[in-house]
Amino acid sequence: MLTLADVQAAQHRLRSVAKVTPLIYADSLSQSAGHPVYLKAENLQLGGAFKLRGAYNKISSLADDERRRGVIAHSSGNHAIAVAYACKLLGVRAVIVIPDNAVETKVKITLSYSAEVVRCGPMLNDREDTTRQLQEQHGYVLVHPFNDPQIMAGQGTAGLEIMDALPEVQAVLTPVGGGGLISGVAVAVKSRNPAVKVIGVEPQGANDAYRSLREGTLVTLEHPDTIADGLRSQHLGALTYQVIKRYVDDIVLVSDEEILDTVRILAENEKLVVEPSGAVAAAALRLRRAGSFTGPAVALLSGGNIEPALLKSLF
Amino acid sequence: MLTLADVQAAQHRLRSVAKVTPLIYADSLSQSAGHPVYLKAENLQLGGAFKLRGAYNKISSLADDERRRGVIAHSSGNHAIAVAYACKLLGVRAVIVIPDNAVETKVKITLSYSAEVVRCGPMLNDREDTTRQLQEQHGYVLVHPFNDPQIMAGQGTAGLEIMDALPEVQAVLTPVGGGGLISGVAVAVKSRNPAVKVIGVEPQGANDAYRSLREGTLVTLEHPDTIADGLRSQHLGALTYQVIKRYVDDIVLVSDEEILDTVRILAENEKLVVEPSGAVAAAALRLRRAGSFTGPAVALLSGGNIEPALLKSLF
Repeated sequence: MLTLADVQAAQHRLRSVAKVTPLIYADSLSQSAGHPVYLKAENLQLGGAFKLRGAYNKISSLADDERRRGVIAHSSGNHAIAVAYACKLLGVRAVIVIPDNAVETKVKITLSYSAEVVRCGPMLNDREDTTRQLQEQHGYVLVHPFNDPQIMAGQGTAGLEIMDALPEVQAVLTPVGGGGLISGVAVAVKSRNPAVKVIGVEPQGANDAYRSLREGTLVTLEHPDTIADGLRSQHLGALTYQVIKRYVDDIVLVSDEEILDTVRILAENEKLVVEPSGAVAAAALRLRRAGSFTGPAVALLSGGNIEPALLKSLF
Repeated sequence: MLTLADVQAAQHRLRSVAKVTPLIYADSLSQSAGHPVYLKAENLQLGGAFKLRGAYNKISSLADDERRRGVIAHSSGNHAIAVAYACKLLGVRAVIVIPDNAVETKVKITLSYSAEVVRCGPMLNDREDTTRQLQEQHGYVLVHPFNDPQIMAGQGTAGLEIMDALPEVQAVLTPVGGGGLISGVAVAVKSRNPAVKVIGVEPQGANDAYRSLREGTLVTLEHPDTIADGLRSQHLGALTYQVIKRYVDDIVLVSDEEILDTVRILAENEKLVVEPSGAVAAAALRLRRAGSFTGPAVALLSGGNIEPALLKSLF
């Protein structure tokens, strides 16, 4: 299972590559929550999301012959951007499989980092089939969006930064899609201080991790349905599920309406542009959905790559 | 004249009141500028602008009998918010004179901090007449928006934070309205390292400081005209002008169209919500308006209190 040492090794590799993003006190959210709220602003990360942490950690760890073969990834957006960005930095060929229903802003950013983009159908098996075919034809190395120890370790570096910046934190909340982010963060946070709560947040329409924790088995959703395009995963990974079962205290849910309200509030009051997936943890604190705290809690804003037309529609 | 010791004393007073705002590497702006660009994110400051620094420094320095009399300020917006916020923290009565043409978002925020708001005509003498009458009737202490050593010293603390976070900086750019911000920042920056360039940025339609530096005399504009509502000052203060003449290397200009483009780019690419006045320094770097640099330059984002309808219109 993933360990603190893995996350620390990732932190070493990411030094001078990924940003140490700011942890920002949020005045208006603190008033709504009834306790101090800080925002871990991964929307300000290079590529606009935390995903660079895992992607760079993975790709920079590849053997020379693997790097020469090039890498392939499938993603609805931010992992695509991150793999393209990391490959550009490392001089590795990147082929990205993106479903037809992805947010076009994210496709545009991916292309801007000179990745080759292949489109496919919207379901997880469409992506996986297309990816497998291309792998078999060309010998590319797969960079999985979440179910990989190097990816999980990379994402966990955000957790180390939170503990360094705010040792007195009482709870850390992150979005949950495939579980790469929360599993890395949970290992980092709990290793530093087991008393700190680690809480995942999912949209009501993509509640597979919520159900998996409650039912004690890895639940798969047929048709996840939520505005939070980064959290439409059908199920956790086998590896991320193991870590989540052991280290995560709870998973809570927010509605699409609550998510969009929070995107608007983050822009108007906290001056931060956040995409729907990135706003779920802040929504949970704002709505006191994750229990009550007497001290500071952190909401991780996982990304900022929102479609301009959607942002516009919120004002 | 203002000294480093004044700014350091302000920094001591502001400790645990104002945020040490993050200095954020801006990937897309760096590519446009051709050198690393960092953003001093005062849009994330409490009250949504740098103004809290000066206002709190001034009001917390008042004698007990002055605090008991209450304070008065005139402002088009962010100074109003800051005086209201500081007074709320310090338990001092705040009366704010706001011109009819102020941005309503800023009036709303001011009222939310329980200040008493008095409206007046749009010109500087309207504000000054109304303020003087109320002062004479009620004995309030005036908190000037810029022409006051304690205000200038407070704003300068942002300059100290820049020098602490990025000692290798080659240039610091700030907006120029009445000159309180740039005079404080210039004293801080030049005292730490005289080789660092300090450059002011004005809208073309409110170019009084630009002209004052070139003509060698304090120029007054009859009708400043710009979308940047925080920079519509008709002239510098006597005190700020003296400091600017001595310490500021240059003032450069940007158009309203360039400002609004930059507000959009900051939201889309850097994920930061910035008001027009707050975007002028970033605009100047993006457009290479302030000379060329081989190392990092900082654009101070002075505030984020943009009218939602204006932000909406940019997408």
